[in-house]
Amino acid sequence: MKALLRSAGALGLLLAAPFVAPAQAEEGMWTFDNFPSDEVREAYGWAPDQAWLDRVRLGSVRLEGGCSASIVGAEGLVQTNHHCVVDCVQNFSSPGENVVLTGVRAMSRAEERRCEGMAAQVLMNITDVTQRIEGATADVDAQGFTRARDAEISRIESECRGEAADKRCQVVTLYQGGQYKLYEYKRFEDVRLVFAPELNAAFFGGDPDNFNFPRYCLDVAFLRLYENDRPARTPNRLQWRSDPLRDGELVFISGNPGSTSRQLTAAQLAFQRDHFLPWRLSYLSELRGRLIAYSAQGPEQARIASDTLFGVENAFKALTGRRLALADPQGFGVVEAREANLLQSVASSADTSQTLSAAYGDIAEATQTFRGFYLAHQFAEVRLGGGSELMSWARDLVRAGDERAKPNAERLPAYTDARIGSVRQRVLAETPVEGALDEILISFWLSKMREYLTADDPLVRKVLGEESPEALAHRLVSQTRLGDPAFRAQLWEGGAAAIAASDDPLIVFIRGWDADARALRARNLQEVEGPVARAQERIAQARFQQYGQSLYPDATFTLRLSYGRIAGWTEPGGREVAPFTTISGLYERGTGADPFAITQSWLDARPRLNPNTIFNVSTTNDIIGGNSGSPLLDRGGRVVGAVFDGNIHSLGGEYFYDGRLNRSVAVASTAVEEALGTVYGMNHIVRELRR
Amino acid sequence: MKALLRSAGALGLLLAAPFVAPAQAEEGMWTFDNFPSDEVREAYGWAPDQAWLDRVRLGSVRLEGGCSASIVGAEGLVQTNHHCVVDCVQNFSSPGENVVLTGVRAMSRAEERRCEGMAAQVLMNITDVTQRIEGATADVDAQGFTRARDAEISRIESECRGEAADKRCQVVTLYQGGQYKLYEYKRFEDVRLVFAPELNAAFFGGDPDNFNFPRYCLDVAFLRLYENDRPARTPNRLQWRSDPLRDGELVFISGNPGSTSRQLTAAQLAFQRDHFLPWRLSYLSELRGRLIAYSAQGPEQARIASDTLFGVENAFKALTGRRLALADPQGFGVVEAREANLLQSVASSADTSQTLSAAYGDIAEATQTFRGFYLAHQFAEVRLGGGSELMSWARDLVRAGDERAKPNAERLPAYTDARIGSVRQRVLAETPVEGALDEILISFWLSKMREYLTADDPLVRKVLGEESPEALAHRLVSQTRLGDPAFRAQLWEGGAAAIAASDDPLIVFIRGWDADARALRARNLQEVEGPVARAQERIAQARFQQYGQSLYPDATFTLRLSYGRIAGWTEPGGREVAPFTTISGLYERGTGADPFAITQSWLDARPRLNPNTIFNVSTTNDIIGGNSGSPLLDRGGRVVGAVFDGNIHSLGGEYFYDGRLNRSVAVASTAVEEALGTVYGMNHIVRELRR
Repeated sequence: MKALLRSAGALGLLLAAPFVAPAQAEEGMWTFDNFPSDEVREAYGWAPDQAWLDRVRLGSVRLEGGCSASIVGAEGLVQTNHHCVVDCVQNFSSPGENVVLTGVRAMSRAEERRCEGMAAQVLMNITDVTQRIEGATADVDAQGFTRARDAEISRIESECRGEAADKRCQVVTLYQGGQYKLYEYKRFEDVRLVFAPELNAAFFGGDPDNFNFPRYCLDVAFLRLYENDRPARTPNRLQWRSDPLRDGELVFISGNPGSTSRQLTAAQLAFQRDHFLPWRLSYLSELRGRLIAYSAQGPEQARIASDTLFGVENAFKALTGRRLALADPQGFGVVEAREANLLQSVASSADTSQTLSAAYGDIAEATQTFRGFYLAHQFAEVRLGGGSELMSWARDLVRAGDERAKPNAERLPAYTDARIGSVRQRVLAETPVEGALDEILISFWLSKMREYLTADDPLVRKVLGEESPEALAHRLVSQTRLGDPAFRAQLWEGGAAAIAASDDPLIVFIRGWDADARALRARNLQEVEGPVARAQERIAQARFQQYGQSLYPDATFTLRLSYGRIAGWTEPGGREVAPFTTISGLYERGTGADPFAITQSWLDARPRLNPNTIFNVSTTNDIIGGNSGSPLLDRGGRVVGAVFDGNIHSLGGEYFYDGRLNRSVAVASTAVEEALGTVYGMNHIVRELRR
Repeated sequence: MKALLRSAGALGLLLAAPFVAPAQAEEGMWTFDNFPSDEVREAYGWAPDQAWLDRVRLGSVRLEGGCSASIVGAEGLVQTNHHCVVDCVQNFSSPGENVVLTGVRAMSRAEERRCEGMAAQVLMNITDVTQRIEGATADVDAQGFTRARDAEISRIESECRGEAADKRCQVVTLYQGGQYKLYEYKRFEDVRLVFAPELNAAFFGGDPDNFNFPRYCLDVAFLRLYENDRPARTPNRLQWRSDPLRDGELVFISGNPGSTSRQLTAAQLAFQRDHFLPWRLSYLSELRGRLIAYSAQGPEQARIASDTLFGVENAFKALTGRRLALADPQGFGVVEAREANLLQSVASSADTSQTLSAAYGDIAEATQTFRGFYLAHQFAEVRLGGGSELMSWARDLVRAGDERAKPNAERLPAYTDARIGSVRQRVLAETPVEGALDEILISFWLSKMREYLTADDPLVRKVLGEESPEALAHRLVSQTRLGDPAFRAQLWEGGAAAIAASDDPLIVFIRGWDADARALRARNLQEVEGPVARAQERIAQARFQQYGQSLYPDATFTLRLSYGRIAGWTEPGGREVAPFTTISGLYERGTGADPFAITQSWLDARPRLNPNTIFNVSTTNDIIGGNSGSPLLDRGGRVVGAVFDGNIHSLGGEYFYDGRLNRSVAVASTAVEEALGTVYGMNHIVRELRR
């Protein structure tokens, strides 16, 4: 791995020379108000101007479920990944009819069905609010820091939003608190499904091929934004390009990378490497095994588990790659060098040096403290219910009841006026519940909670009582009425009084120890997040002093732009990987056995398809999870693909970017267009794209 | 963790002072021909003499499945752990009758049923053969080292064994090749089951309590050795003690610790920590999940999977503890200090210094090489079939056919004349096969092989062909005839010709790529094991120069003696753990829900039991997996317990012993006696023990 300093071995020069931007060429997930146009122009002889940036921003979409997308038609047509809508497709399934396997093709507007609980956001405006936050937190100690900060954030967000129903305001913490920006979004909560291919076409190669390349996936789907029950007018749509991509051409990715950890300290990353990631990997592996064995019982069970299983396998592979990146002494060396370089660069100022060293020390200490209770915090607070939707509704209902009774600034962040709408939409969405799946998730979560905290832990005793994890999960799931949206709506409207009076077993269960979970949450804020946030802010300030805005902030699931080239790469062992695959390769790779079985639609269409059409493509752009569904754009701002993955080397991108090896993977617009027209008979969508 | 040097901070002193034994008090799994009696006498005012050691050796038993045991009656009666015989109990089960849950109580000799495939060994003699091995390997390069060594070992073992049917001879590599000793055993291959409690009594607390203490497990079982269809005469039995144990009293454990890694280098252990253990943990976790979900389908499935599931959970927890021990910077510091201390202690000799540094370098290089192919080696060779008995029979049949045609000295080690008898017994044992379990194990193994080696790997393509892991596993298991012992016997007798002619799908499967697996095996010997063994031998020689025999060798699943005290410990957080639990504690911990459900037999017997009888006990003895079933002995050499576990801290014992925290856990003879008499009505066994 290269060090993140552009000039390798520049450590000695740093004290004398002006500080270079600590990013490699093509590294970075840049905010739209700080895009390094000068550097791009220098490298490529051309760079986006403000009009280009504004246009692309307004054509970019954030899906609240954790994905990105682009507006590709004037009547609300949106392109994203299949794996970003599979949840919605799953909800259209029913016993005996697995729509995930057959796909969805709306042949007219009337056939476009709403994805319950899905919402899309377009970023309309960015304002700097750093001074307001700094003012509000200036005289607060480390322990009170997050509380004061969150209260001010909540005020800013409420003021911004006002009464507008379709407006969302979010204060985004950038550079670990070096900057705070207010992001204003237009929000669409009526999102309907236009097209989703069969799972086997979208996810050809399945888990074995995931994060690998060459690939042959039509991991694309189309949605449509609606307003007032009519397709939304979206004149800011991005244009569609039908010409094939060229090797080496300049491309951009506009999307919402979820999170990176490139500014975490060595102490924090050692904790990730040695404790957090190994624990998560063991958890995910066993859950994966349980879900696979459950799925093997029959097609109905496979249908019920498939979406969750995909998420688990995807996370397992991604976290495995991350752990390996940190376990690589060279990789971890990049992290340590980053810290050493910054410390050395401020060595001439005793004050800054001392502040910086103290900040690193505070983080190391807080991390050590966290190690003592992070498992309890994870099980009881962060991952309550282990992914069970029923359990998560139950907690949202219990907490929303409590929190709505408090003044806005004193609430938990998720329940402030500016954000509670999303919670409400999630809780009241008419999504079907698969009790069998919730029971698996809850019983597994309970059994692991007992395993990791031990049977003697007082909280475990309180949570389990005299029941086994299996019996408790069964009782909760089989007896709760929370599967009924009307019942949930009734509890939501009834607020704290209705919650207190409820004898629903899931509500009773959550109520019984929510105070303990909140105590863990408070302890974490007090002893870990507060001190860490304060120390990070100080490190960020030192970094700003040295590097200015020549840096990009860690990803925050907000809109970013990355630039790069269409390019393959050379494997460390010497093997060359070409940047393109073509449709013919799909047929060569098919074996007839899952996950390498080609769908009937593609087998039927084979004679009519152009075997040389570019299918999937790899680029040097720096992205991360959350970028799924992002448009791949050419210099004209035209959509040339939909990003759906990275190669295996890109997983270390959580911590550092290595331009020699890290690659983004997209499905090319050429393949999307050919598939829509020739395989799926959806020429009306092709016309809409090309219009 | 303490450093392994007795005087902490002695690094500087080492160059001047005589070298102290690099072991803490109570550390060590000592061979019977090098027990540190002087040190024990110094600490306790008493130590075993040669007669004591001989007597205990002849009363100690090695079970070939990987456990220890003791002879506790003059007519072949043997005590071991329940978890060492559960495989045998499982084989007595049948659809609808889960004997593991109900236990086995032979009320007369006639009811004692044979455990197929089980064999017991008693160590009769130890001879030093170091010079013969050194002579045979002196002029051989690193790559040829293991081959030359193994050929000489095979010769020695064959000469030793001669024609004796009940004799086994094994050359044991001690001190990483610093010593080679010939161990001669008397072997009993007719072993019958006398008593096994219900699983819930033996394994009360299940996986959550495993490796924890306080404990309440009757993890004990009795076997009987037979010769010529009659109980074996065993006048060398150990005496039984019915008096309760006392806190602080001196105790010994005589058993067969399986393996430790206390002399591995930092490079080897970093590989374990960062690559091997995380991979195994992910593998075991997912398999665990699959087996748990399969078991949840019904009591029959639970019966089929239970034994394998126990093994998987036990291994998962043990390896988790090991990984954490290595991930602890202090723990890994012990490893690094061990290496640094040795290097520094030889600093005055330029020659030795250079040899030692070169040896560490060779091991680091071989470990790096191993990293490039260890997964292929594991999947294709070491863990072929993922635990499927059918698959392991198939490979033994295929390889035995090939190997028996070769001269003895050229065979793979397991198939030499001295050892092939064990293979034959295993392959021909009339153990029932659970096809469903084999199918799970094989399909999981195949899917992970594809995942870790990737679908593009040539070997994976050869192994899978166009089939999915599930389809291939189903075809192999459902169509093979290897479940029939007569069919296996026929193939065994038919040898290479019968194997070549066979169209059994499992034989065809193995035959199809055994050459590839053997190539990986050869590559490993050539590039890793050979250079490592040679380098280890050199490090061992340097260590001998410095410390002499004041060291103990790493565990090798051969007979060792450890000494220690009955003692609790203080948890790092400050909590005191007492060394004893009593029968009353069992009833306090029971919840009625698995795995904390008390069996009906114990509920019924409660009024007649002495609540104050000591149940489980913790001691400071240094042991490791393989010691399961070992007798806990008092200074009189009397059996006062059966060792069945260590506490959670003992898991780091793979790499270092920490006397403050590491504890062995045993079921006390007092509880065994009371349970046999009062709970299970087996007074005839109690009389036999007390005779």
